[in-house]
Formats: sequence, structure tokens, C-alpha cells
Amino acid sequence: MSNIYTPDLKRAERIGLEEAIFCEGKSSTDLQKILSDYLRDKVSCLLTRLSAPKFESLPEMIREKIDFDPFSRTGFFGDLQPIKKEKLVAIVTAGTSDIGVAKEAARTLRHAGEGSDEYDDLGVAGLWRILEKEKDLQQYPVVIVVAGMDGALFGVVGGLVASPVIAVPTSVGYGAANHGQTALAVALANCAPGLMVTNIDNGYGAACAALRMLRTIRGS
Amino acid sequence: MSNIYTPDLKRAERIGLEEAIFCEGKSSTDLQKILSDYLRDKVSCLLTRLSAPKFESLPEMIREKIDFDPFSRTGFFGDLQPIKKEKLVAIVTAGTSDIGVAKEAARTLRHAGEGSDEYDDLGVAGLWRILEKEKDLQQYPVVIVVAGMDGALFGVVGGLVASPVIAVPTSVGYGAANHGQTALAVALANCAPGLMVTNIDNGYGAACAALRMLRTIRGS
Amino acid sequence: MSNIYTPDLKRAERIGLEEAIFCEGKSSTDLQKILSDYLRDKVSCLLTRLSAPKFESLPEMIREKIDFDPFSRTGFFGDLQPIKKEKLVAIVTAGTSDIGVAKEAARTLRHAGEGSDEYDDLGVAGLWRILEKEKDLQQYPVVIVVAGMDGALFGVVGGLVASPVIAVPTSVGYGAANHGQTALAVALANCAPGLMVTNIDNGYGAACAALRMLRTIRGS
Amino acid sequence: MSNIYTPDLKRAERIGLEEAIFCEGKSSTDLQKILSDYLRDKVSCLLTRLSAPKFESLPEMIREKIDFDPFSRTGFFGDLQPIKKEKLVAIVTAGTSDIGVAKEAARTLRHAGEGSDEYDDLGVAGLWRILEKEKDLQQYPVVIVVAGMDGALFGVVGGLVASPVIAVPTSVGYGAANHGQTALAVALANCAPGLMVTNIDNGYGAACAALRMLRTIRGS
Amino acid sequence: MSNIYTPDLKRAERIGLEEAIFCEGKSSTDLQKILSDYLRDKVSCLLTRLSAPKFESLPEMIREKIDFDPFSRTGFFGDLQPIKKEKLVAIVTAGTSDIGVAKEAARTLRHAGEGSDEYDDLGVAGLWRILEKEKDLQQYPVVIVVAGMDGALFGVVGGLVASPVIAVPTSVGYGAANHGQTALAVALANCAPGLMVTNIDNGYGAACAALRMLRTIRGS
Amino acid sequence: MSNIYTPDLKRAERIGLEEAIFCEGKSSTDLQKILSDYLRDKVSCLLTRLSAPKFESLPEMIREKIDFDPFSRTGFFGDLQPIKKEKLVAIVTAGTSDIGVAKEAARTLRHAGEGSDEYDDLGVAGLWRILEKEKDLQQYPVVIVVAGMDGALFGVVGGLVASPVIAVPTSVGYGAANHGQTALAVALANCAPGLMVTNIDNGYGAACAALRMLRTIRGS
Amino acid sequence: MSNIYTPDLKRAERIGLEEAIFCEGKSSTDLQKILSDYLRDKVSCLLTRLSAPKFESLPEMIREKIDFDPFSRTGFFGDLQPIKKEKLVAIVTAGTSDIGVAKEAARTLRHAGEGSDEYDDLGVAGLWRILEKEKDLQQYPVVIVVAGMDGALFGVVGGLVASPVIAVPTSVGYGAANHGQTALAVALANCAPGLMVTNIDNGYGAACAALRMLRTIRGS
Amino acid sequence: MSNIYTPDLKRAERIGLEEAIFCEGKSSTDLQKILSDYLRDKVSCLLTRLSAPKFESLPEMIREKIDFDPFSRTGFFGDLQPIKKEKLVAIVTAGTSDIGVAKEAARTLRHAGEGSDEYDDLGVAGLWRILEKEKDLQQYPVVIVVAGMDGALFGVVGGLVASPVIAVPTSVGYGAANHGQTALAVALANCAPGLMVTNIDNGYGAACAALRMLRTIRGS
Repeated sequence: MSNIYTPDLKRAERIGLEEAIFCEGKSSTDLQKILSDYLRDKVSCLLTRLSAPKFESLPEMIREKIDFDPFSRTGFFGDLQPIKKEKLVAIVTAGTSDIGVAKEAARTLRHAGEGSDEYDDLGVAGLWRILEKEKDLQQYPVVIVVAGMDGALFGVVGGLVASPVIAVPTSVGYGAANHGQTALAVALANCAPGLMVTNIDNGYGAACAALRMLRTIRGS
Repeated sequence: MSNIYTPDLKRAERIGLEEAIFCEGKSSTDLQKILSDYLRDKVSCLLTRLSAPKFESLPEMIREKIDFDPFSRTGFFGDLQPIKKEKLVAIVTAGTSDIGVAKEAARTLRHAGEGSDEYDDLGVAGLWRILEKEKDLQQYPVVIVVAGMDGALFGVVGGLVASPVIAVPTSVGYGAANHGQTALAVALANCAPGLMVTNIDNGYGAACAALRMLRTIRGS
Repeated sequence: MSNIYTPDLKRAERIGLEEAIFCEGKSSTDLQKILSDYLRDKVSCLLTRLSAPKFESLPEMIREKIDFDPFSRTGFFGDLQPIKKEKLVAIVTAGTSDIGVAKEAARTLRHAGEGSDEYDDLGVAGLWRILEKEKDLQQYPVVIVVAGMDGALFGVVGGLVASPVIAVPTSVGYGAANHGQTALAVALANCAPGLMVTNIDNGYGAACAALRMLRTIRGS
Repeated sequence: MSNIYTPDLKRAERIGLEEAIFCEGKSSTDLQKILSDYLRDKVSCLLTRLSAPKFESLPEMIREKIDFDPFSRTGFFGDLQPIKKEKLVAIVTAGTSDIGVAKEAARTLRHAGEGSDEYDDLGVAGLWRILEKEKDLQQYPVVIVVAGMDGALFGVVGGLVASPVIAVPTSVGYGAANHGQTALAVALANCAPGLMVTNIDNGYGAACAALRMLRTIRGS
Repeated sequence: MSNIYTPDLKRAERIGLEEAIFCEGKSSTDLQKILSDYLRDKVSCLLTRLSAPKFESLPEMIREKIDFDPFSRTGFFGDLQPIKKEKLVAIVTAGTSDIGVAKEAARTLRHAGEGSDEYDDLGVAGLWRILEKEKDLQQYPVVIVVAGMDGALFGVVGGLVASPVIAVPTSVGYGAANHGQTALAVALANCAPGLMVTNIDNGYGAACAALRMLRTIRGS
Repeated sequence: MSNIYTPDLKRAERIGLEEAIFCEGKSSTDLQKILSDYLRDKVSCLLTRLSAPKFESLPEMIREKIDFDPFSRTGFFGDLQPIKKEKLVAIVTAGTSDIGVAKEAARTLRHAGEGSDEYDDLGVAGLWRILEKEKDLQQYPVVIVVAGMDGALFGVVGGLVASPVIAVPTSVGYGAANHGQTALAVALANCAPGLMVTNIDNGYGAACAALRMLRTIRGS
Repeated sequence: MSNIYTPDLKRAERIGLEEAIFCEGKSSTDLQKILSDYLRDKVSCLLTRLSAPKFESLPEMIREKIDFDPFSRTGFFGDLQPIKKEKLVAIVTAGTSDIGVAKEAARTLRHAGEGSDEYDDLGVAGLWRILEKEKDLQQYPVVIVVAGMDGALFGVVGGLVASPVIAVPTSVGYGAANHGQTALAVALANCAPGLMVTNIDNGYGAACAALRMLRTIRGS
Repeated sequence: MSNIYTPDLKRAERIGLEEAIFCEGKSSTDLQKILSDYLRDKVSCLLTRLSAPKFESLPEMIREKIDFDPFSRTGFFGDLQPIKKEKLVAIVTAGTSDIGVAKEAARTLRHAGEGSDEYDDLGVAGLWRILEKEKDLQQYPVVIVVAGMDGALFGVVGGLVASPVIAVPTSVGYGAANHGQTALAVALANCAPGLMVTNIDNGYGAACAALRMLRTIRGS
């Protein structure tokens, strides 16, 4: 009597967000089974945490329906909705190693029809880099900040812009960086008032939070 | 050459949030010194984490300028701006013990001129309690959820409403509740997409996050 | 004078549970040695945490005596007792990735002659999924709930059914999910009264707990 | 529009357990308010984690309605149902310091009309103490084991009796005992198959778990 | 044959630092015994972690030999060497609550004859505060930074000045601040190259590190 | 049917160690009850973790039978056996604050008739202090080392003497000392081969370990 | 001027234990360099944590001088001293998976000329297994107990024998077993008085501790 | 509009340290892209955490510009400045396994034109080894100590030399060594006054800290 999944097909209607498939921990067989059903039913969706080997293990027929990006480990399955004109989200990274997570956020936004601009490698050890972008960043209704190691960028951006700031700690670093736990704690214990935080490496979650806000802002 | 504080007087202009004074860890002497200067300069502000004994230790002249609430440990110092008509924020609590933190959020919003509605004691062990409020909660542009112990309420609300949801874990509980760390981890590792999280017991931070959003929504 | 194992052959008589062999951490050589003895002595048993490569490394003669399931990493070695008619246990999972652990529980029950029904992918982010099954679940004398990440399903089921509920946290998730520690803490610090908890990913233990209860219920 | 509590009055009907009031973290004012309403509505209930000072701070009129036990920090508020004849639960403690938690379990059972027998101070450092009780313990359909420090008693009892065994780790001990975390981990990582575990010091939860089982056993 | 202390009287000669007495954890009786011996032998020393109540519990004769500062919990016992002309150390704090620890560093330096300048309340949430001091700070051969909560100030100062920077994390904050562990981890996992870190709240240790450097710089 | 304690009266016969009463966590009432029984039965015993206030709360009649030492929080109840001539145990401490724990070990040994010599305040920051005692320490068949903070003394002594070395980490220190966890980890992860370790602050346990060895050495 | 190692050649003379080479973390090149020097100087030694692949990577000429045991990852390099007649050490394991660590202890003893007897798979879930060996175990002057998971065997053995008991926690288990941390904590927080503990999986350290005791016992 | 890196080209001017490229977590493609730009612009730099496989994956044209050392995982890219005459830094290691980290420090110093002397394998279990070097070590203006496991060497060196001592904990060891966290905590909680600490395995950071000091000492 068991079925391996119970799709939440009315999620978009209820909370304005399409269901995504978290691929980590699912076998290729299960993933293929779900996507075959979706193909049959013409359901399109976002795939997250899809590693290159797992993507490669899927049959050709499924693979060709996926617009896959190995760097962010995301895939667009099925048709993609058109992108809206105005870009309302800025995504800032502290270092080059944080870009994979930032791309997961950007691709999640794109899948929902929202564009974004990226500002990369602006860590506070060279403070002029973020200060030069201050005016630019103040123009966006939503700002996502992606940072690992010491996570000092969260508070600096939180003190420079008035818009909602979503902090995404990353697992970049070693030793006391503790797989992202330090950047996470820094984001939570921050002196800059009103920072909001997601799980470590959770670019997808940050994008969903942004989409909840954009829905109100765009008045839809 | 040292001065015990460096006020950030242009904060409101820069990020739209007034500076608040975090009273924990400051001696009564220091607090009195700062507030005397503010009194002289006609600066008004919010006081957070102000315990009843510390409030009592302040001189009469300062005390009478403070609208103090012992339950949320907050004080309004100086003049208060008028409250806006429309209430845009719902604050939901899982249990009676979470209400102090919820009140800190409500009072922070009030200090900034924003009203809020509270929905208390709706923990998921009696699931019908939250389901009865589903329609009501869907009307607010911002929802704050305050919960300790297992924190199961975060995900349930996150799956019921489309607006941004801000999770505030509380230190309620014992043993495996681990001073709020479990509720915090639950909020971060949540299956409901797009939850945003603040520090443990940080009602003030949740309100500031809401204020960042309301600024955009109200178009000011 | 040493012998690598000391079988607890009277365990079934004493506590009503057959001994099982936990294969993780045992070398193929040791495992083969034990099973050869069992074969000779016509002892049948359950094998848990038996990875596919370790299974493959066993000699043909042993392998053909094992009914192996790679997904739950369990094997039935030797003869299997008949299954009882009435199914008394429901096994509920929060997500597709939790099914491997659920299957370990189901197979352990099956090895002891007990059937079970599975209800899969009923996480609370889409709350209607579990609510639709409420009446069904209330029919079972024992309910096992398997969930990772935020573990919110434990409390929701605990609040819906009157039977004993056994929570099995899984290591599904990343970052703040902390290898199952968060789901474990959630199960322990739960608001729903009377939840019982097993180790992370311990489907076997949950089934043994259920068997202890069924023994009383069936009056044997 | 807020009310400080939302009683779950149909809980007993739904899951067979009366609601209890967890008094820790509630102010005396709130507690008094809730109990006054209950008094008016003739609702009786169990009070847990009620410290002696908090009990003393309640008004005489409320206090005289409470059968208070300072050692287990529990109170029976209002009328008490009659106790059932047959005692079906054994409660075993490892040391004298664990008895407070054991009493919380015993009093929770009593409030629901179930009796229990206590077997105290049977830690495994003097192994003959538990071995002498082996036959006795095997007569109960449900066994609760309460132990702190090294928690070795959980596994020993789990290996001696066939009935369901509920482990309650306590916060007794210091240093590596780590406020009960070690005893908790021991209970979870146990070699004795089918142990079920509750939160640290959670005698109330263990009793609720037992009540769920007794309901099936008594066929009600 | 036991004596409660073994003074390291040649420490100054060997490593250039006088021995200090860490008063926490020593009983008043022991402390009095040690100081009476020192008085007799005309040994002067620094007292650290000396709480006001413990100071008050000492006999008048000892107390009057101590220049006590309750805020930093330090005391100068006996004669004090003259202060050197040039101030070579800057001490920067992130918030008013960090000043106690900063004062411990300043007083330790003073006891060794070195002056220092303090720059207080320069946390990065109001970034202009630290930027205004950039030129000033670059003049000192040694900079000590004292910060709790998110510790973002460490990396910002580390990126602005070329001198050795010593980070002192403080236990200021709550929840994810985790008693200073987050600020400590931030200091260690920092992107600004060459930060050096001391224990939480260890103003004394930071000053000793500075003294080791000043010895070389002053060529003594 | 419950009795609050089950004395292990044959412990001395079985493992050569008298039972001791761990007083922390026991109420004064329970303690008094146990000691009254012992008084009646002429059982003598060691009391550990007996705080001064708890001692004071006992009735005069019990108190006068106790040789109480507030510093080590130990009491000798009843008659004391004579002390053996030769002292076979050295107890070394790193700092004055560790002496309370050392005294608990010394008093436990004394209660069993064994003497010991103490060598105090020999921390490695002044290395000559321990080197001067090298020859002395090498004379004892058993050496106990008591140290908190960095615990560096464990390895240094372990490398200097050939006898069994028992390391007792203490909770002295702050911040990264982490309530003794750091000293404990240092003792366990030591480069000096064959160190044996007890729980934090467990002077009693170290003495019991020594007594097990002395029994063999003395041939009794 | 650097040399990659500084042999401690007088260690045996000083503390009665030969130096051993800890091979983990050393490159094959470094290991080969050290052993070639030893070969030249006719130094023999024990190799610990020598994995099979690292052993295989050594040149034939070195390999043939090593008596290698892959299971315990130990090697005897060079000549081996004769074994003493009387076996004075018992090594007890809780489960088959703990035997590798037990063998490391046995081989370390053997390298020093001491024999030992092993008692395997005596975990307390089947309590009769250890009880049957009680008399046997009481004959040994030193008992080493090796156990992972719940570590309940430590306390049971500690309560049965009067000799010194050395507990070696192992990393066997999963989830709450936490890589051996639970077994370690159990050993430290034990109710059985006088247990001594080594690092996780440290069979070598337990053997060295035993050797320190045997030296006294044998009077050498 | 995104560019994967934002070079901090004026870093040397501002803080006296050249930018280094942390290669871990950067893809070969990104690394190649950055280095091609540097080659074009004649920028030279230090590469850290460059694994042998990642080095091998770079194109020949880039590889031949890198002076690569696989042991310390560092590379000198482009021209190297001449080495200064006087060596001012001593680098001390506790064991052979710590040398890789020590070499990272030495190579970072070399890249900046500073020489250093290494003193290897001087762990305190054989105390004479470090004592023999005492006079030598006292000659250097800066001493770096590299140690894992128990980290006892930090405090011993800190007590022997008057110069600034920089402690680098390493991830050498197992079990309670906890991936370097124990050595880190030991360095922070040290009794030797004025120790300064870097992240685990951070030889690069220790060298940068030394360079900040040398800049003052050399008066440049």
C-alpha cells in the first residue's frame, strides 16, 4: 500500500512556492521514478542538491529535459517561466568559494521568474570593496548575503542597507570555522538589528524567503 | 580619552531603525549616564533586556521617563510616536511560556509605530488550535512565530501561509531542549521552504526584521 | 582461549527477541565465520547494517541463504517464520529519504512474523497529507514515526493518535540538521506527551520496541 | 485579542491523556489565572515542575485545592479519579538521587488512576541488587527505569525483562555526566534491543508513554 | 609537607613578566595567607579576577595595600612602577559591555609601566565609527581589539592596520553568542591575515602578549 | 514497598572498597535518614561532596559523629581505621585552586588507612618547580596529578616517572577551559604513554583507583 | 638544521616503556626514513596505527623486518623479547567489533614481554555471559575492559573485581554512540568506584598503563 | 555583472601583507582563471592549501610558474623576493606529524623574504628534548610553536622564552584530540601568560602574525 512519495501539488496555490525536489539522499532509481511520473503529468519543477554523478546516472530521456548547472547542483526540469523585467534582489558573497551557494539562490529565483544581481568576493578584510558598492546595494528591496569562515560581512551589510537582509552562512573554511557553524552563529548573534538567517549552505531557502517578500512587494 | 559609548545617531536615516539600548551587561551606573545624556539631548529610545531590579536601581528622575514592562523586560524612554492604523504583523506563540519573548517583539514594533495581533498557545500537540486560525493568519503580510522545546510550530505555520515567516526560537524547556538550541536547529533545518530565523529569545530582532519589510510594503 | 563471539542463544526465551547480527564494523571474515557456524547449527537470524559490498564479499554458499534487501541493508538468514494475519503496526515517514530506515523497521518486524503498513512522505510542510490519514492511523495499536531534518512530524502524530508512538530520528538533512541530532532532540523535547524515542536511524530498535508491546497485546 | 492560553480540552478524548500544566517558566500570576478559570469550570488537572516556592506564592484558595508533593514537584488539582486495582507498572531507580524523577512518574500514573511499584537504588555497581529482583520485574507489563551518571542500569534491565522498557535518564552526576546527556546517550546507543527513551528528568513523559500502552493492554 | 603555593619568583627574569595572582577559585583565607607573605617579603604583584565581595572580605591591613578597581576586577598590590612616556598600545572595544575586559588589559599594562589609549563602542553595525579612527589606530605598534557577540570588529581592524592585532573575544551576548564561543571562533576563523587570539574575556593575557612585543620594540 | 536506599554492604568484601555516600543531590532529610540507620547499625563510612550548608543542616547528634573538612567537602562518619606506616601515594597539583580536589583524594585514602604526600602548585609555566621534585616523585608506587586549565602537568609528570600516573582534571579556569573539559581532553589525548584518567574533579575516584593498586602492591 | 625526528632513546630507562611509533599522519617516506635509521642502529620498536596500505607501501627490505597484524594495525619491528611465564592481564570485550582495539592492547603487552588472556563478546545485554566469567576475572592483578556503544560493561566489571580496571571506550556504534564519546563519558561518569579511563580506541595506552602497574607488581 | 573575484591589490600597502590565494574550495577552473589574469598582469602571490591533485590539474603553462611543495601544500607563483640575512623566527614542533603545518609557516615567511629555523619533534613526553634547546630558542624575537594532541608544548615554551610566542594547534591525534579542538583549547586556556593563538593547522596565519611583528622590529 506504500507509495514512495506524496506530492504536495497545491503548495504553489497555498504558499506561493512550487515544490522542489531535494535530490541528496534519494537513490537514482527513486529520482528517476518521480521524474518519469512528472514527465507523464507535465509537472515541471526545480531540482536541488543534484550532484553531477547523480545527474549522469539518470537515463538520457530524463537528462535532456533538465537544464543542469553542476556548480550550484541545481536543475530546471520541464518548462521554465519567463523572467520578470525588474531585478529586485542583490546577492553578495564574501569570497570566491561562496559562489556555488549564491548560484543556488540565483537559480531558485530564476526558476520562479525573478532575476538577481551578484556582487562577488567583497569580504571585509578589504573593506573598501563593500564600501564601493554601498549605494548600489541600497537600491534593492531584498539583499541576500552569502559568507563562510568569520561571516563578518553579514553585520557590515546589515548596517549599510535598510532593506531586509537574509544571511546564508556557508561551510567554507576549516578548524574553528567548524563546517559553517561559526558563520551561522555569527549571523544569529549579530549586532546589526533585524538580520534573518537560513541554514548553512541553504541558498535555496534564502531564495524562497526572498520570494515570499517579493510576492507582497509585487502585490501578487 | 575614552568615552563609554559612541552613539550611532544616523542609524535611523541609514537603515530605517532607531538605535536601542541592550541593558544586560551594562552596570546601572553606565545606563544612568547614557540615559541622562539622552534626556539632556531629547533623544528617545527603546530599552531591551531591562530587568526589573535594574529598572528599580535607576534614579526616580530617569524611571519616570520610562514606560516599563517587566514581562518583556522592555522600556520606552522618552516620547513615543503614534501608532499606525493598519496592523500588518501577526505574532504566534506555541505556549504560554513563550509570551515574554513575543511581547518583546510586539513592544519593539509598537515603539516604531506598528501594531500587531497576538495568537497565543497554539502548539501542534493540539493541532486543531492552529488550524482554526489558518484563514486569519493568511491575512497578514508578515508573520512572526515564537516557539521553544520541539519548535514544531515553525514548519506548520510555514506550510500554511504564503507571507514571510520569521521564526524566533525560545529557551523554554529542559534537557534535550538545550536552552533553545533544539528549537533553533529545528527552525534552521526546516522542511517548510523560506523560513527565516533569529537568535534564541530574540523578539527584538524579529521585530526589526519585520520593520525592514514593512518599510518596503508601506512604501516609505 | 578467545573466541570472537559469545552467542546469547537464550535471548528469545528470556526477552522474547531473537539475537540479530549488527554487521557494520565486523570484517567479512568474521561475519563469514559466524554465519558458517550458524549454518552448521541451523540457527536462523536477522542481519542488520549489511552493506551491499559486504554482502557481495561473502561466499556464494552463504549468500544464497540470505534474503538480502540492499535498501534497508537487512538480510534474513535461514528459515523465516510465517507472517501473522493481522497487521498491528503503522510506519509513517516524513520524506522519501527516510524510507530506508522505515524498511529496516518493517523487515525486522517481518522477521519476527509481524506485518506492518507504511505511510510515506507525509511531512508537515504539506499538513493535509497527514490529516487525511488521521483516521487510518488511529486504528493501529502501535505507530512508528520516521523523520529527519526538523522532525516536526513526531509531535503532530503524537497529538493525533492515542496508541504508543515510537519516534525514529533519521540522519537526513545537512547543516543544522546535524546528522540527525536535531531530529533526535526534537523527538525528546516534544510537547506531545508520551513520545518514546530510539537512536538515530535505528529502525531495528523501533521494531524491537514494537515487538515488546505486541507480545503483551497478543497475549503471548 | 490575545488570551494567554488555549486549553486543549478534547485531548483526553483524542489521545487518552489529560492535559497537564507545566509550571516552570510560567509566572505565579499566569498560573493563578489559569487555575482560577479551571476552578470555575470544574476542570481538574495535573501540575508538573511546580517548585515549592511557586506553590507557596499561590493564594490560599488555590493552594487548598492542590495535593502537592514537593519532592516530585507535582500537584493534583481538583478531584482525583479512583485507583485501579492491579498495578501494571514497575519503576526502577539506580540511586537515591533519582527518586524525585521516579516519583514524578508514579504521581502522573496515579493521577490517571494507575498504581505502580518502586524498586529503588539498584545500580549495577552492586549487581546482586538488580539480580535479586529479576523474577519480580518480569511480572510487570511495563517497566520504567530511571538512572543518571553512567546509565548502565538501562541495558541490564533491558536484557532481563521481555516487557517494554522505558528509559528515563536523569541529570544526576557531574563532569562527564554532563547534566544527564551521558545517561541519555547511553540509553539511546544501547545494546539491549528495543529500549525506548524519554527526555532527561522526564518522569511525566515516561508515565504518559506507559499510559498509552496500558490503554491497549486494559482494552479501553 | 605541603605548602599551598610555590611562587615563581624568577619569572620576570626568565620571561620578562611578573607573576600575577588569579583570585577566582582561591578562598579568602588562602588569598590572605599569600598576600601576608608577600607583604612581609615586600613582593608587589597584580591581582586579577578579584571580585568586590572577595576584596571586601580581606582584612583592612591587606586591603589598604591594594589599589582596587571593581569594574576590571583587578588590584595593584604593593608599589607601582612609574609609567613610561610614550603610549604604544591601542585598545578598541565593540560595545560598552566589553569595557570591563578592556580595562583588565589596560590595568595589566599599567602595572608593567605601559600606558594605553582606549577607543570604545566602535562596533561595525555603525561602520563609520571605526572608519573615523582608522588613521589614529595605524599609529600604534600594537592594537588590542575586544569584542563579543558576532566579533565582526576583529576582521575589520585586522584589515585596516598593519601592526600586530590581538583579538580578545568576550562573553557578552546570549543564545547563539554562546558565552563568547562564537566571538572566539570568529577571531580564529578570520579572513584578515595574522590575527592573534586569546581566551574569552582574557584581557590580562592580551596585555601580557603585548608586553612580550613591547619588550622587543623598546629593545629592553 | 519502596525503600530509599539499598546498601551494598558486601562491597568491601567483593571489591576491597567501602561504600561512600555521595551527598550532592540528596536532600538533608534523606541523608539524615541513611546516617541514622548507619549509626544504629554501627556502620562507618566516607561522605563525599558534602557542602558546608548541608552539613550544618544535619542534627547535632549526627554532626558530632562526622569529622568534617569543608575545603574538600568530605566527612569521616563513625570510627576511623589506623593509618598505615609507609606512604605510597604522591598527590601533585598544578595550582593552588586545585587543592580542594587533591584533598578529596587525600582524605579518601586516609579513610582507607593510606597516607599520602602532597606537592602543590607545580604548574609547568614555571618548569623548574616540577623538575626540582623529579627525584622525589620517582619514589612513589602511585602518583596522582590534579590539574585544570591547560592540564599540561599531566604529560610532564607522565614523562618523568615510571609508576602508574592517575590524572584528575579539575574545573578550574574559564572560557576555553570549559569547566574542566579541556583538561580532561588533554589528559586523554596525551603523548605520555599510559596515563589513566578520571572524571573532572573526581579526587574520590582517583583515590579508589590508587587503593585498587595498593591492594595488589601490599599483597592484601 | 631541521631533522624530522628527535628519538627519546632513554625513555625505557626513565619510565620503563619503550618508545613506539604512531604511524597515522606520517607519510610513507618519513616512516621509511625513521625505520631505516633504526635498522642501521639496531633499534627495535613497536609500530601502532599502521594501516595495511601504508605497510604495503614500505620497501621489501623494511617490510620483512616487521611482524605485522592488520587487524590491530600493529607491527613488531626488529627483535622481540621473550614472553614472561605468568599472564597477569585479562582483556574483556563487549562485542566482536571491539576486538581490534583489544588486540592492539594485547600486542603492546606482548611486545613488552607480557602475556594476556582475552574474554570476548561479553556485553551486558546477555548478562549471564559476564557473570559466568566472574571468578576467572577476579584472578588477574589487572583487568582491561574494551567497550563501545553504551559502555555498560565498564561499570559491571568494576563492580565485580577488586583489581585495577582500565576502561577503553571504542568508536563502535552510530548516532548517539557519537564516535565513542558516549562510551568515554560513561566510563568517566561511572558509579563503580576507581575505574581508570584512556582515550577512545586507545588499546596501546591501556597496555602502557598496565605495564606501569606490572612493573611494580613484578618488583622490577 | 558578476566577476568571480575582487582582488585586494592595495593590501600590501595598507597592512604590509601580500594577498594569498586559499585554494581549497576553489575549482581548478576558477583557480586557473585567476592565475591567468595574474600572469598577464605580472602579479606574483602565495598559494595555500593547494593539494597535489589540484596542482596537477592546472595547465602546464601555469604549473611551470609555480614552485610547489606538496608537503605544506603551498606554492610560490611568479617571482620571489630575496631572503633577508638575519633569521628572526624559530618554529618548534611537538611531533613529526606536525611538520606539514610548520612548513606552511616557514614557506609563508620565505615568500615574504624572511628566513626561519625549525626545531622538530620536541614534545614534552621527553622533556629533556626541549630543555636542551632552551638557550637557542631564547635568541629569537618571535617563536612559533606547532603542536597537536595534548598541546602541552605551548605552555612549556611560553614559560621558557620572553619573546612573543604564537601557538598553532594541529589536527594531529584521534578520539579526545577531537580534530585539533583539544590542542586549540589548551593553547587558549594556558597558564603561561601572553600566549597568542591561531586557528587549527593555520601555519599561514601564524606566519602573517610574525610578519606583522617583524615589520615593527625591522623598523620598516
